[in-house]
Amino acid sequence: MATIPSDLSTRCALLLSKYESIRGFTDGLCEPLEIEDFVVQSMPDASPIRWHLAHTTWFFETFILKPFAKDYEPLDPMYEYLFNSYYNGIGEQFPRSKRGLLTRPTVAEVMIYRREIDNRMGQLLLEATPEEAMQIAPLVELGLHHEQQHQELMLTDLKHALAQNPFYPAYDTDVEQPTGKTTSQTWHEVDGGLVEIGHEAADFAYDNESPHHEALIPALEIAGRLVTNSEYRQFLEDGAYQRPELWLSLGWNTVQSEQWDAPLYWIRQNETWHEFTLSGLRPLNEASPVTHISYFEADAFARWQGSRLPTEFEWETASRLVPVEGNFAESHNFHPAPTQESEGLRQMLGDAWEWTTSSYAPYPGFKPPEGAIGEYNGKFMCQQYVLRGGSCATSRSHIRRTYRNFFPPEARWQFTGIRLAR
Amino acid sequence: MATIPSDLSTRCALLLSKYESIRGFTDGLCEPLEIEDFVVQSMPDASPIRWHLAHTTWFFETFILKPFAKDYEPLDPMYEYLFNSYYNGIGEQFPRSKRGLLTRPTVAEVMIYRREIDNRMGQLLLEATPEEAMQIAPLVELGLHHEQQHQELMLTDLKHALAQNPFYPAYDTDVEQPTGKTTSQTWHEVDGGLVEIGHEAADFAYDNESPHHEALIPALEIAGRLVTNSEYRQFLEDGAYQRPELWLSLGWNTVQSEQWDAPLYWIRQNETWHEFTLSGLRPLNEASPVTHISYFEADAFARWQGSRLPTEFEWETASRLVPVEGNFAESHNFHPAPTQESEGLRQMLGDAWEWTTSSYAPYPGFKPPEGAIGEYNGKFMCQQYVLRGGSCATSRSHIRRTYRNFFPPEARWQFTGIRLAR
Amino acid sequence: MATIPSDLSTRCALLLSKYESIRGFTDGLCEPLEIEDFVVQSMPDASPIRWHLAHTTWFFETFILKPFAKDYEPLDPMYEYLFNSYYNGIGEQFPRSKRGLLTRPTVAEVMIYRREIDNRMGQLLLEATPEEAMQIAPLVELGLHHEQQHQELMLTDLKHALAQNPFYPAYDTDVEQPTGKTTSQTWHEVDGGLVEIGHEAADFAYDNESPHHEALIPALEIAGRLVTNSEYRQFLEDGAYQRPELWLSLGWNTVQSEQWDAPLYWIRQNETWHEFTLSGLRPLNEASPVTHISYFEADAFARWQGSRLPTEFEWETASRLVPVEGNFAESHNFHPAPTQESEGLRQMLGDAWEWTTSSYAPYPGFKPPEGAIGEYNGKFMCQQYVLRGGSCATSRSHIRRTYRNFFPPEARWQFTGIRLAR
Amino acid sequence: MATIPSDLSTRCALLLSKYESIRGFTDGLCEPLEIEDFVVQSMPDASPIRWHLAHTTWFFETFILKPFAKDYEPLDPMYEYLFNSYYNGIGEQFPRSKRGLLTRPTVAEVMIYRREIDNRMGQLLLEATPEEAMQIAPLVELGLHHEQQHQELMLTDLKHALAQNPFYPAYDTDVEQPTGKTTSQTWHEVDGGLVEIGHEAADFAYDNESPHHEALIPALEIAGRLVTNSEYRQFLEDGAYQRPELWLSLGWNTVQSEQWDAPLYWIRQNETWHEFTLSGLRPLNEASPVTHISYFEADAFARWQGSRLPTEFEWETASRLVPVEGNFAESHNFHPAPTQESEGLRQMLGDAWEWTTSSYAPYPGFKPPEGAIGEYNGKFMCQQYVLRGGSCATSRSHIRRTYRNFFPPEARWQFTGIRLAR
Repeated sequence: MATIPSDLSTRCALLLSKYESIRGFTDGLCEPLEIEDFVVQSMPDASPIRWHLAHTTWFFETFILKPFAKDYEPLDPMYEYLFNSYYNGIGEQFPRSKRGLLTRPTVAEVMIYRREIDNRMGQLLLEATPEEAMQIAPLVELGLHHEQQHQELMLTDLKHALAQNPFYPAYDTDVEQPTGKTTSQTWHEVDGGLVEIGHEAADFAYDNESPHHEALIPALEIAGRLVTNSEYRQFLEDGAYQRPELWLSLGWNTVQSEQWDAPLYWIRQNETWHEFTLSGLRPLNEASPVTHISYFEADAFARWQGSRLPTEFEWETASRLVPVEGNFAESHNFHPAPTQESEGLRQMLGDAWEWTTSSYAPYPGFKPPEGAIGEYNGKFMCQQYVLRGGSCATSRSHIRRTYRNFFPPEARWQFTGIRLAR
Repeated sequence: MATIPSDLSTRCALLLSKYESIRGFTDGLCEPLEIEDFVVQSMPDASPIRWHLAHTTWFFETFILKPFAKDYEPLDPMYEYLFNSYYNGIGEQFPRSKRGLLTRPTVAEVMIYRREIDNRMGQLLLEATPEEAMQIAPLVELGLHHEQQHQELMLTDLKHALAQNPFYPAYDTDVEQPTGKTTSQTWHEVDGGLVEIGHEAADFAYDNESPHHEALIPALEIAGRLVTNSEYRQFLEDGAYQRPELWLSLGWNTVQSEQWDAPLYWIRQNETWHEFTLSGLRPLNEASPVTHISYFEADAFARWQGSRLPTEFEWETASRLVPVEGNFAESHNFHPAPTQESEGLRQMLGDAWEWTTSSYAPYPGFKPPEGAIGEYNGKFMCQQYVLRGGSCATSRSHIRRTYRNFFPPEARWQFTGIRLAR
Repeated sequence: MATIPSDLSTRCALLLSKYESIRGFTDGLCEPLEIEDFVVQSMPDASPIRWHLAHTTWFFETFILKPFAKDYEPLDPMYEYLFNSYYNGIGEQFPRSKRGLLTRPTVAEVMIYRREIDNRMGQLLLEATPEEAMQIAPLVELGLHHEQQHQELMLTDLKHALAQNPFYPAYDTDVEQPTGKTTSQTWHEVDGGLVEIGHEAADFAYDNESPHHEALIPALEIAGRLVTNSEYRQFLEDGAYQRPELWLSLGWNTVQSEQWDAPLYWIRQNETWHEFTLSGLRPLNEASPVTHISYFEADAFARWQGSRLPTEFEWETASRLVPVEGNFAESHNFHPAPTQESEGLRQMLGDAWEWTTSSYAPYPGFKPPEGAIGEYNGKFMCQQYVLRGGSCATSRSHIRRTYRNFFPPEARWQFTGIRLAR
Repeated sequence: MATIPSDLSTRCALLLSKYESIRGFTDGLCEPLEIEDFVVQSMPDASPIRWHLAHTTWFFETFILKPFAKDYEPLDPMYEYLFNSYYNGIGEQFPRSKRGLLTRPTVAEVMIYRREIDNRMGQLLLEATPEEAMQIAPLVELGLHHEQQHQELMLTDLKHALAQNPFYPAYDTDVEQPTGKTTSQTWHEVDGGLVEIGHEAADFAYDNESPHHEALIPALEIAGRLVTNSEYRQFLEDGAYQRPELWLSLGWNTVQSEQWDAPLYWIRQNETWHEFTLSGLRPLNEASPVTHISYFEADAFARWQGSRLPTEFEWETASRLVPVEGNFAESHNFHPAPTQESEGLRQMLGDAWEWTTSSYAPYPGFKPPEGAIGEYNGKFMCQQYVLRGGSCATSRSHIRRTYRNFFPPEARWQFTGIRLAR
């Protein structure tokens, strides 16, 4: 039997260690939950926790075990259909809007599914030939980043479900509310000209961050910190939700049809603004970044304030001024935190995804991979806006300066925030 | 302390015994369920099992404990809002279509709620003064019949939820499929003239069964048994769902908009008709009564067959020809069963609710009770059809010949069937 | 050639005279209109005037000329499809909700169609053999009554369309506003017992008025006149549209979803109630019957007032107390008029259709005619309420005591009103 | 009285001449129409012709006559409300989706409105002081370009309305079908690098074409002509509308929900493809450019063909290679025409609007004008794609190389086509 080159063997071992760590983080997120919390789907855009647990597992089974594991027999052939999210190349999908109607497999059965696939993945990684390892490793990397994306969605989908309940139950009551004073805004110069955009290093990145290319940006100033709840409250009290001239036309339509009058989780109780967090309902923290706002609201705020949002190229260029540090999922705060007075750029990474004015579009020369895996990103490049920087629900090990998240302009259930430019 | 008259005291004791028995039957229905099964709401017309468990408890709390128990403190003031179904006289209601989005109170907490209210009800019944007992007893009777109605809804709502799952999970796998041969139809004469309609005895009945009054019916013949799956399959194979001339105009619209092509739970697999039952998916039993059909389908079948459906007055008159016996919930079959060859009227009670051509309307001189309790029946007397006779999911102790059930003509998730007349 | 029996020949000549008169009345209704008024469809329930003109003509072409005229060649084969309302037996229909999108045939072309069919009808009636005449005459009668129904719909559909316009244009400005003082309500006894219901004379009636049969009614009192605007305003000012306890459950849902707060054409201007009429917007006439109210509103008013609506059998029995006289379309008022103080029953016929509590259902033994013509009435006997008595937009020559009109309980655009019983 | 500088006076006279010419072109477009054709609104995105005629007139009245004409009295104060399209700064608007329900003002009254405003505009332009002229002239220019935009919409909205009619009536039957052979595709190099984008000359342009700025484009090849019906038919026959892998995710959703299976006006008759044109239904001309396709279809075609659509910057750069000539509204063809074999770039201007991959976004530093007039373009810069080059329904005097049209990706009722790049 051929000796496996030590580097590949090591890489597989490291990958397995990373696999176990990231899969375990998912399990850990479930610890505070009741069985009931795993079942509910509070809107078509969200999914039940149980579905996330199964779908991320399905991803490894479908794209790695089925093609690469010898004599692979699926646990249950129905899972291919039930837990396929949107991969037409794999086959039909159970309707997205009905995920919350399934009671089988139960949570316990889904956990058995996870463990079984974990075992087989471990076996596969340990026994892979060098040729197989070269093919499998990038797919495992992709599967783990996919799992991390769903970890964030589990938190935001769960938050949305809990918010439907008039008890406003907390996901985790042990988290202390972040404190801090409202700091003054600062502005930081970014040079204009041709800049380098996109991923070029050898490490992992999604296909949508490529090809690396040049872009032209103007000279600009970028805000030192995210917009705070205090600033947003002033906007609101200045009639924000009653003044059409502040809004994009579609934004104003949405304000009216959805009867928006505050950010998604701001709740008025006893004539005071509160905010629903994963630690329950709390009085609004004036110093914290405003979050759970749509692109429409971010855009209207910027217009009201006399500035604008950055493009994704401006943001990526500015982000090179600071290290990749911040308030991430690893800290288990799960809420944006106030910043300190400082001369520098703060909160660029972590805390809240920052809306950019860039429509989500392919980089010049972009080609998605062949086959079903190519459906990961490319087919969604339409009618969405790019968000940058990660949030308090994103893992530090998942984010990059070149990372492109994307949501439609009316989406509010993610941890989204506002970074101004001018 | 005044002596409680023995008859009232006995009545209360008997009532308490009945209370415990009926509440216990509800609990028993939950035994085969997973926690996940308690949470799901598969359509706005259906409710999660957990909600049924809480709402029936809320009924006793709201209409009996709050007004009659001394110094009554509710377990949780929010429950008044969460578990109010439609009583505007009580106050606002949590939106019906969102009942499946609630994960708190959990199933365990709902069970605690049930037990707590049971304890207090027991105490109240044992300690009631004669004056109180006279007021309380009819409300307890009503609450118990209310609970029995929800027992039936628990089974039909659960069946609907399980049917969404491509695994077609069984509620209870221990039930044997009823057997029997398809029997020929028979016809039975019913005399026309002035007949007595409605409830007049001293025992319990709903307000909608009163006042007792005379009605005029023509002489008619009524079918000896329910229409079978075999007969309905012939109707289907004769192009039923493609022939507008067989349908009421609204029925044909519904066939087209809902893309109906068979009864609700008929599933075509491997070129054979199957039927989803609470014991799982089974090959269609030709001898069993067809069930889960709408008024529109019952009406179209009758037109195709050359006869008609009876009115509720005709049905009630015919029902006096037979004893109140049949295939009820107590037998735990939970599916209509084939009948035997016989000279007599069969399946009049139990098996399947029988659609009548009577729109649900007040009897002459009907007055609902004062207050919120008056919302029980009267306000729904519009755009619904009366069904008679109970089903395999109805308790024997709940049904009467004068009992009026009602659903809109497109409803299919109840155990509904077809009795012909001519 | 055989001599035509004089009576049939005379009958045909009389029928032709009636044909010309009724068809001419339709044309007369169009005189005040602009071309633009013929085109608009303001809701799916209403149709453009042009469509009514063509559809009534199509009726004669389809049910009489095509089967009976020798070598009949249709003017345009497409008309069969375009102007078929709902007769599945004839074939496919142009979608009802899109009738307002058609600009061809133009109004002028539709008028040519009318004249051409009139000519051929005249010819057919004059040349018919006795055998043919016996077959044709009842169909012509039916076609003329059909035309009269559409005359009323033309007025109510047009009123609905004009009401969409903030100018509130009048259909006819020459009509004087009816005057009169609000009179006190009176009550009139009607004997209970077995009564005769339905049509039995030899003259024309729709199939739904048959078979003539006996029904049982209780003794009752019926109100001497229709409910007035003044009385309805008091109901409104007593919080009618904010009090769920006054409404049927579906009624209350409709009040909320449709945001009803007054009868359909009541308009609040300068803090005064106005009413849109076919003669334009006018200050509310307190003495006039309230009109354009739904069954839900009629039912809620009666509940608030402490009485009820009559059944259709009660109404028909009471109607025999008065002659068939009243405020009909022939007077060209086109609005319900105040009544005078009187000892007798007033406004039973004409003025406004009177909602009854009777669901629209077949009389015992009802059989619709064979073929497409049988789709006229029977297939609509579901989810509608019976209205009786005709309105200010009904022709005197069209109405009978046994006449059964029917609309769903939420319909408001007909001239509907409230007659109380108790 | 001060002498008006000759150049301004001349400019006003020239402007008035242009005003009369463009307003007259609008009137000319109406000549083939029946009154009925002016009334219909076939979908919420389209407007009745009568509304276009009034709205363009309202624009001059609102933005010029009201602020600048002395003692200006509006013809009818209601028109401000009725004919305001979307200018929140002006006030409330009659609901867009109900424009087809208005029958007043009639077509004749709208024509009187047009003539009256024309007279007053003429007077204003002749009597304007130099200071006034400097303010008014750019607004008149804007109003005339606005009118030309609506001329195109009149044609496309009318086409959509006529297409609802199973007669498929022609707008103008005198137009000969364009002939020509299908030519082979050619490819033309465009240099990459920094390019100049946007309007900078002194003549008129919309605000959205500014500021003039630099952009970076890659070297590319652009197709010599538009994609033809023949090529699109091959795409269709290769299963285009059944293959999800060819589509953006939203595109595939739209194909399924809208049941698209061909371009908007392709009609299958007698097993042959036909195309509805403003000259009626015709057999599909294989050599003509495919038109009335959505962005989704253009994108899917390009993917299938192995190329892509250009960005708007690529398009604008390529367009400088050819003169601004083509098949425009002035020729009264009103349909894209086949091109000839040629070495050069053809059909860049006129024939069909060309979808680009560029989301409609502000140019760097874009500021809309102050006040209601600033609502013209900026507020729509969201969820739309840029189209370039004008169409057969665009006036030559209206189009520019820098002109940015924009529609949502599902829009199909404009004359849209496909230009490939690679």
